[in-house]
Amino acid sequence: MTAFDLGPYSTDPSYGRAQTLDAADPLRSFADEFSPLDPGLIYLDGNSLGRLPRATSSRLAEVLDHEWGDRLIRSWSERWWDQADRLGDAVAELIGAKPREVLVADSTSVVLFKLTLGALHARPARSRIVTDALNFPTDNYITKAAADLSGCTVTTVASADGIHGPTEQLVAELDEDTALLTLSHVAFKSGYLYDMERLTAAAHDVGALVLWDLSHSVGAVPVHLNRCRADLAVGCTYKYLNGGPGSPAFLYVGDHVDTEITNPLTGWWGHAEPFDFDLQFEPARSIRRFQTGTMPILSLAALEPGVALARAAGLPRIREKSLALTAFFIDVAEQILAPLGFRLASPRDGKQRGSHVALQHPDGWRITQAIIEQANLIPDFRAPDNIRFGFSPLYSSFTEAHTAVGRIARVVRGKLHLDYPVAPTTVT
Amino acid sequence: MTAFDLGPYSTDPSYGRAQTLDAADPLRSFADEFSPLDPGLIYLDGNSLGRLPRATSSRLAEVLDHEWGDRLIRSWSERWWDQADRLGDAVAELIGAKPREVLVADSTSVVLFKLTLGALHARPARSRIVTDALNFPTDNYITKAAADLSGCTVTTVASADGIHGPTEQLVAELDEDTALLTLSHVAFKSGYLYDMERLTAAAHDVGALVLWDLSHSVGAVPVHLNRCRADLAVGCTYKYLNGGPGSPAFLYVGDHVDTEITNPLTGWWGHAEPFDFDLQFEPARSIRRFQTGTMPILSLAALEPGVALARAAGLPRIREKSLALTAFFIDVAEQILAPLGFRLASPRDGKQRGSHVALQHPDGWRITQAIIEQANLIPDFRAPDNIRFGFSPLYSSFTEAHTAVGRIARVVRGKLHLDYPVAPTTVT
Repeated sequence: MTAFDLGPYSTDPSYGRAQTLDAADPLRSFADEFSPLDPGLIYLDGNSLGRLPRATSSRLAEVLDHEWGDRLIRSWSERWWDQADRLGDAVAELIGAKPREVLVADSTSVVLFKLTLGALHARPARSRIVTDALNFPTDNYITKAAADLSGCTVTTVASADGIHGPTEQLVAELDEDTALLTLSHVAFKSGYLYDMERLTAAAHDVGALVLWDLSHSVGAVPVHLNRCRADLAVGCTYKYLNGGPGSPAFLYVGDHVDTEITNPLTGWWGHAEPFDFDLQFEPARSIRRFQTGTMPILSLAALEPGVALARAAGLPRIREKSLALTAFFIDVAEQILAPLGFRLASPRDGKQRGSHVALQHPDGWRITQAIIEQANLIPDFRAPDNIRFGFSPLYSSFTEAHTAVGRIARVVRGKLHLDYPVAPTTVT
Repeated sequence: MTAFDLGPYSTDPSYGRAQTLDAADPLRSFADEFSPLDPGLIYLDGNSLGRLPRATSSRLAEVLDHEWGDRLIRSWSERWWDQADRLGDAVAELIGAKPREVLVADSTSVVLFKLTLGALHARPARSRIVTDALNFPTDNYITKAAADLSGCTVTTVASADGIHGPTEQLVAELDEDTALLTLSHVAFKSGYLYDMERLTAAAHDVGALVLWDLSHSVGAVPVHLNRCRADLAVGCTYKYLNGGPGSPAFLYVGDHVDTEITNPLTGWWGHAEPFDFDLQFEPARSIRRFQTGTMPILSLAALEPGVALARAAGLPRIREKSLALTAFFIDVAEQILAPLGFRLASPRDGKQRGSHVALQHPDGWRITQAIIEQANLIPDFRAPDNIRFGFSPLYSSFTEAHTAVGRIARVVRGKLHLDYPVAPTTVT
């Protein structure tokens, strides 16, 4: 054990405010729905991998013992046949979509590929994709891959400060040759939150389609796909939906474009009648045509409890707490950590902010290692110098946010981070 | 409960032979490694969904409670980072490949798409794919999808009898314009087993690549990818590898073509340094470049026990028992079921047969329903008239094979199937 002081930073005047905010938190009891952490551990990385819901173990045991072990192949008709559709309907509620507009399938990268290539095929006379440099790397890679297969080019708009999304420049890039605008709703590094309604309308003004990656917003930020008339969306479920490591992704196809978009990965589970074993592919006349291979039943089952918790809490309350948590953290960090060389690398304006906060520090990598190992505090690190602190409103508390700042201050004041290597090799 | 007689068909002279064969079976004890079935149930559908290994529940509990619940994001560096590679190495041993030639990822359909399109990109001057009509439907659909994206055509060679693979016609179709020969090693319906060495050599003679789908052979039939100099392969793990419903697929890229084949689905997990978050894609210089999205950790963990059991049993013993089981079943079925209108729809020659046997009957669908519901016997049905009986050497017994024939005979003689609808609606 370390001699490091892991206790609350109770001498700070904001400490009492944290306790008051926690006492008044209407979502407080949701933390008990998650498997407990090691005593003293503060986990601020739910934006990377969400925690384990208590109900997940019993749900998986049911799948193993009863559905697979006992009922075996019969479970396909008894339970599994439309499991991904039902889960899609549940996710739809969290993102402002209708039932049968959302499907759970594959990984985020694979569903991105399907919808990006599907969008390009729906705009065959156009040759441009517009995106930004804040987008998650896999989005950029997959966009490029789909563009290469279609003879399209990708325009990647930079952000002036690396924090805020370049909305005006994106709008200026949209033209009659643009097939697709593709963006992360919340940027993975800075947490910048785009105005979905405005950018969707701007793309539609030139006849382009829009694809939103909701990976860093779903379950933490209200999303109104239908209200914004968004065409396409994908998202990750192992962050704020707590679906577990590598849990399946989801995809959304708005019913206003449903007849336009085809799935280029035509596997048998997207067939209208998979068990007819036809030689010719005939797509299902529903969102199910975006399935490809056999659905990963264990992973789908493991995702159900996390989605249910987000629905039970409700996005308005989740967003209210998320904004309060991140604002409180920023406030305390600016008082205590700014003098130690930390700089806010997320939007200060709550309307432009998702549920994680990035702090830059020239020694960011060493500090990250030190606070994980010495201070029992887990954020994550995004090269070159961003420490990200994710606040998952279902289980993060104001006291944790405050204590985290205190621990970081103690690490840096104590120069504990100077014992760590300067550059990352393989990063978790 | 039904009054139907589920007991052994002990008046038949072959019954004693079944008991003798079981007593001498060196793999007999492996059945105890699986979660027990309901008493009396005979499960002959392991070729569609394998049974639950006993070790899977505890392995998943470890992942949930310790790796995810307790260690959280730290498990990526402690355990998960190369889990798909390690599992790929284990599968490699079962298919005659070297470590680092095999990766576990995605679904079979998705990895098929990757390797098919990758193969076409490696032979850009050629415009034909050759396959057969015995191939699994998803293989035909995905092959067509990849061909459409590359401006290629697909030649699908029919089988003269719907049972045996059209080897000579396939060889005759191969020419200097053929980019890829793609086949199921064992046909999903008839169980026909191709001569991998001969067809691979024939494709290489014209400079074409070969892709083998091992879904119905891996874990039941010895596969010698390296010895045959096979270029590419994919396979399913929820059949004879008992990985669970929708468990991840695997892909193989022979190291002799490793530098030629690129992954068209360039997601971040195929990047050389995924955690550098580069804007440009730089493929990993290993089989890992065929990863795309975040690996499904729970599903990977659930697959480990099934793969370990197959390795422990060893393919020579597995094949020996598989051949003996299917030969015994065919023998008894021809004596008892042929007079009732059943016709063998699998190769009689063991050298041409995988581990399942198809019987055709004009009333196949009704009989399938009746034997499931009345006779507590689960095979599966493949339209229009094939009843498939899968023998999974790790848990199927000769006595089960014999008793199954007896139960079918009782159902058909008792005309119990005439109470069921003539045509399937949704098939399990």
